[in-house]
Amino acid sequence: MNIILLSGGSGKRLWPLSNDVRSKQFIKFFEGEEGEAESMLQRVYRQIQKAAPNSTVTVATSKSQTSIIRSQLGEQVGISVEPCRRDTFPAIALATSYLHDVREVKEEEAVIVCPIDPYVEDSYFETLEQLGQQAAKGEANLVLMGIEPTYPSEKYGYIIPQDKGEISSVQTFKEKPDTETAKKYIARGALWNGGVFAYKLKYVLEKAHELIEFKDYADLYDKYESLDKISFDYAVAEHEPKIQVVRYRGAWKDLGTWNTLTDTMDKSAVGDALLDETCENVHVINELDIPVLCMGLKDVVVSAGPDGILVSDKAQSSFMKPYVDKLDRPIRYAEKSWGSFRILDAEENSLTIKVTLNPGEKMNYHSHERRDEVWSIISGEGKVIVDDMEQTVTAGDVITMQAGCRHTVIARTVLKILEVQLGKEISVHDKQKFEWK
Amino acid sequence: MNIILLSGGSGKRLWPLSNDVRSKQFIKFFEGEEGEAESMLQRVYRQIQKAAPNSTVTVATSKSQTSIIRSQLGEQVGISVEPCRRDTFPAIALATSYLHDVREVKEEEAVIVCPIDPYVEDSYFETLEQLGQQAAKGEANLVLMGIEPTYPSEKYGYIIPQDKGEISSVQTFKEKPDTETAKKYIARGALWNGGVFAYKLKYVLEKAHELIEFKDYADLYDKYESLDKISFDYAVAEHEPKIQVVRYRGAWKDLGTWNTLTDTMDKSAVGDALLDETCENVHVINELDIPVLCMGLKDVVVSAGPDGILVSDKAQSSFMKPYVDKLDRPIRYAEKSWGSFRILDAEENSLTIKVTLNPGEKMNYHSHERRDEVWSIISGEGKVIVDDMEQTVTAGDVITMQAGCRHTVIARTVLKILEVQLGKEISVHDKQKFEWK
Repeated sequence: MNIILLSGGSGKRLWPLSNDVRSKQFIKFFEGEEGEAESMLQRVYRQIQKAAPNSTVTVATSKSQTSIIRSQLGEQVGISVEPCRRDTFPAIALATSYLHDVREVKEEEAVIVCPIDPYVEDSYFETLEQLGQQAAKGEANLVLMGIEPTYPSEKYGYIIPQDKGEISSVQTFKEKPDTETAKKYIARGALWNGGVFAYKLKYVLEKAHELIEFKDYADLYDKYESLDKISFDYAVAEHEPKIQVVRYRGAWKDLGTWNTLTDTMDKSAVGDALLDETCENVHVINELDIPVLCMGLKDVVVSAGPDGILVSDKAQSSFMKPYVDKLDRPIRYAEKSWGSFRILDAEENSLTIKVTLNPGEKMNYHSHERRDEVWSIISGEGKVIVDDMEQTVTAGDVITMQAGCRHTVIARTVLKILEVQLGKEISVHDKQKFEWK
Repeated sequence: MNIILLSGGSGKRLWPLSNDVRSKQFIKFFEGEEGEAESMLQRVYRQIQKAAPNSTVTVATSKSQTSIIRSQLGEQVGISVEPCRRDTFPAIALATSYLHDVREVKEEEAVIVCPIDPYVEDSYFETLEQLGQQAAKGEANLVLMGIEPTYPSEKYGYIIPQDKGEISSVQTFKEKPDTETAKKYIARGALWNGGVFAYKLKYVLEKAHELIEFKDYADLYDKYESLDKISFDYAVAEHEPKIQVVRYRGAWKDLGTWNTLTDTMDKSAVGDALLDETCENVHVINELDIPVLCMGLKDVVVSAGPDGILVSDKAQSSFMKPYVDKLDRPIRYAEKSWGSFRILDAEENSLTIKVTLNPGEKMNYHSHERRDEVWSIISGEGKVIVDDMEQTVTAGDVITMQAGCRHTVIARTVLKILEVQLGKEISVHDKQKFEWK
């Protein structure tokens, strides 16, 4: 089975834990099978590996997310990198072309596309497999998943099937309705359209060639920026007469707000937190290294991270975006492919950062014009290169670097460094990169 | 006018901003006259200086508080240091003896004792002055302030005056009653006993010599630890027939809990915070350098500091002590006479601390057996001494110190240092002090 996971952009609806460089799918809200913290991405990937161990998974995503995906899933997963955002049709065309040309998936094989962020039961992945099998049969060009509605939601599009069978032809699609209209659709047997569908690889490849002039994956990648923004529904699905739908009856939740997200949490708190007995329906997600104490609260979410602290009535949290826009502070924490960084202290002429490098990872060989730096190795082992001189380092070592000197560090184990930047006009733009051997 | 301010012990009822080394009177909740943040201590001191510019103020306090009092009030204020806590009678006897022997206050002069933490109007200080004048007259040996009750409180003791005059003899004292009894007291014209009273210096000095065998202040200080714990009421007031009471009609609030404290705040937020329009009766005190966003809350206090984050229903916050006891984390922030420190990061074999030294202040000359240290000067100017070698330092300088090496730093201006401690078993007890010249 070939699965393409669409990894959406960043957003502020889960501030302070999501920000411009950190999307909700990477935040570790959940508990994995061994009790470890787990992100949506890790959760869905673990569920796929369990339900369909032989499937290949490709994440279609923007450049800015590749590092954190590698960091959370490792090297096995395929990544189809979109050079820029161009809506779902170009993204799916690019990922399909990547599967064909890079992964050498055959044209007759089924490909299944699904978003990365719904919260689902394991049976969802059985339905995914069914979708793939149905697409491979070739009765229809597109096979959609239809989610049995639990309430007349205004948030989803609807699929009206021909009949009530497990697998049915699609009669028609409906845009997001109001509640009353949604009730009528449901009375007619309508299903939610969760944006999950399967096709034979060659079907989308042909559609792509029909709509875009390109030779192969590399060529499509190169001209990606020139493509029009167009959704897959608009470009393909709406014009396709041969579409089937497969029913899914399990839980399916969109975890887009703190309200819906905390509903799915296994425990009332993630991180260091204490709730008194009078708290009702209170959830805490605390990424800071200081404790959160909650007393006498009801229907409240508390979320604390390096970028800020949210304390909100759960329903009210859906309206947070304009307030978060108002805050607009510099980002203090980011996870990257090579590890992570966290700003511990910022003064006018200094910046103190804790840097964690994953094993084997290194910084670019670089220098700064207007600042000195001090590295204190606080744990792990690695190699530091300063002005072409190599030196192995371990916990307790201190390296001082004057402005202008070239430097890098290569981690042998997980390597934690306390970096103090000292100088006037400290800026991320003050960085000159060099080749190292 | 000689005023003794009794500065009480530390407590956890205003966690996370009060802790074992930081009492509520030092936290900057208020706004001073120029809009700057102001603590209870600073507020009461400013009010005294305004109402009675010629008064001498002495703070009676434990050793652990002297540094922060100096830091907040400067050098003008007198401090009577209790070597250990021994309840109010020994504390007042010691402070009175200090006024007599160290400050050379005459025996006929009036001394006024009041707690440091009530929130009062400026007219309170006029009543204080009246208390002092009345005590100086010598009609009574003790002159108390009687606060006109605003409700039948169970939290205070009551004073029953002989009559309804501005100044009256005291008929009797009553212990903290239940609400019904309090109502009866109030019907009889009872006043709250706020622990504010005045006397001629020689009166308490004589009582002290009656009850404790000591020569002078220095002698009393030396034997302080051997004294019994006894309250001033029990040792003196209950046996004194000649007591008068002066009425105070203004606001008088005990700021012992978040609930009462936030009631007196001028603004809904201190520090970096944003409240949406749907918040009602919400107060935020944020000492962290990241923003707090509150949405849709009612009757909630949010308090964030280096030791933790409290989110509580205001009424419920009165019951926080057992929960704070449960948390029991190491202290991460403290203000001292020489400046302040804040722990930025703690790992198994490292500790990163931001140290701020006030101008002219210095550390002890010291060494550590089991850790190296790195100082990065992030702002200010000073002098560093390492193994008897002096060196002036300024922003951008980096000093590395191996275990065993003796070191200190002397601040010329406010000096901020980023200290990274590196070693196994890092402990505050690993410190050897030496003389420097």
